[in-house]
Amino acid sequence: MEFSSRLIEEAVNEFSQLPGVGKKTALRFVLHLLKKEQSAAESFSKSILRLRTEICFCKDCHNISDREICEICANPHRDASLVCVVQDIRDVMAIENTGLYRGRYHVLGGIISPMDGVGPANLNIDSLVKKAESGSIKEIIMALSSTMEGETTNFYIYKKLADFNLQISTIARGIPIGDELEYADEITLGRSIQQRIPYTSQLVNR
Amino acid sequence: MEFSSRLIEEAVNEFSQLPGVGKKTALRFVLHLLKKEQSAAESFSKSILRLRTEICFCKDCHNISDREICEICANPHRDASLVCVVQDIRDVMAIENTGLYRGRYHVLGGIISPMDGVGPANLNIDSLVKKAESGSIKEIIMALSSTMEGETTNFYIYKKLADFNLQISTIARGIPIGDELEYADEITLGRSIQQRIPYTSQLVNR
Repeated sequence: MEFSSRLIEEAVNEFSQLPGVGKKTALRFVLHLLKKEQSAAESFSKSILRLRTEICFCKDCHNISDREICEICANPHRDASLVCVVQDIRDVMAIENTGLYRGRYHVLGGIISPMDGVGPANLNIDSLVKKAESGSIKEIIMALSSTMEGETTNFYIYKKLADFNLQISTIARGIPIGDELEYADEITLGRSIQQRIPYTSQLVNR
Repeated sequence: MEFSSRLIEEAVNEFSQLPGVGKKTALRFVLHLLKKEQSAAESFSKSILRLRTEICFCKDCHNISDREICEICANPHRDASLVCVVQDIRDVMAIENTGLYRGRYHVLGGIISPMDGVGPANLNIDSLVKKAESGSIKEIIMALSSTMEGETTNFYIYKKLADFNLQISTIARGIPIGDELEYADEITLGRSIQQRIPYTSQLVNR
């Protein structure tokens, strides 16, 4: 694609580096920005710059935050003895959106994946072990994806924490609420029968 | 969606104003930018700002340009007596990419569309009429889309220019090269038979 303007070419190249954005979509974005007020482009530009320069990571849970300690860790109403281990901040948002979790988080920043060159040393695992050592945690909930990499990371962390006096659980796997049994995959359906729960415990949760 | 950081929230809101980008895609863009070098975010931010503040439109053809007169209009090897009328700069790029057009352009900046509140006064039609008046144009090629709005704009411009001594043509409509006849729509196929061209003229064009 040839552009009549170097400025457009540069902007298209920048936008097309975003995931899933090709040159044509990038050009659409650029033409959209050109049609808008100058102040809109200025605030867009500023928010990108501030995002990268001002953002920091929570010292406690490694969640992205505007301050040294994130809002969740700074909240005295959240249970500090319950820690949910997740892969990245998108998972924190997903769990927060349920409105049902009142503990804290620990963001690993990825999962163990030798194929992608990610080993335990690249993840925030040491700080989790230290937190467990200090004795402040009673229960850890592993909420990683149920892929080979996720299970490997689960097992690695389980081994590291096995000597400490704390409970390690994983989130429940089963048939999603509202789904029909006939369309469920065999592994999920099989596990949901093996790991069935007493009917009365469901009534309590409502 | 709730975000643990105001900076992320702002950036997601900015990105989600782009056409076809929702909150989830915007968040993907933001997390991608966070993973990259700070210099990458800086150059991205700068290119957006410069795009909007430094860009200008060619005085002659209204194409987007870095200077007062765009590269195409400034090129002495391009035929100034042949003007191709297009809707916006994307069409200029599309025609330039063919490498087969050596004339100049006139970018209308839209087409007449009363439904969207776009009338002839909102488009760069007056400057085209003035160019025609000056007698510098021999032929005008209308290259607007073949929608109701495009045809209306074609006819409006044709009426405005009918009194001047110049040829007005439109781009050829027909079956795309490589397409099979059985899948072509009836209108295109019908027209391509009515407006058939001598076989020998095709040979010359090769």
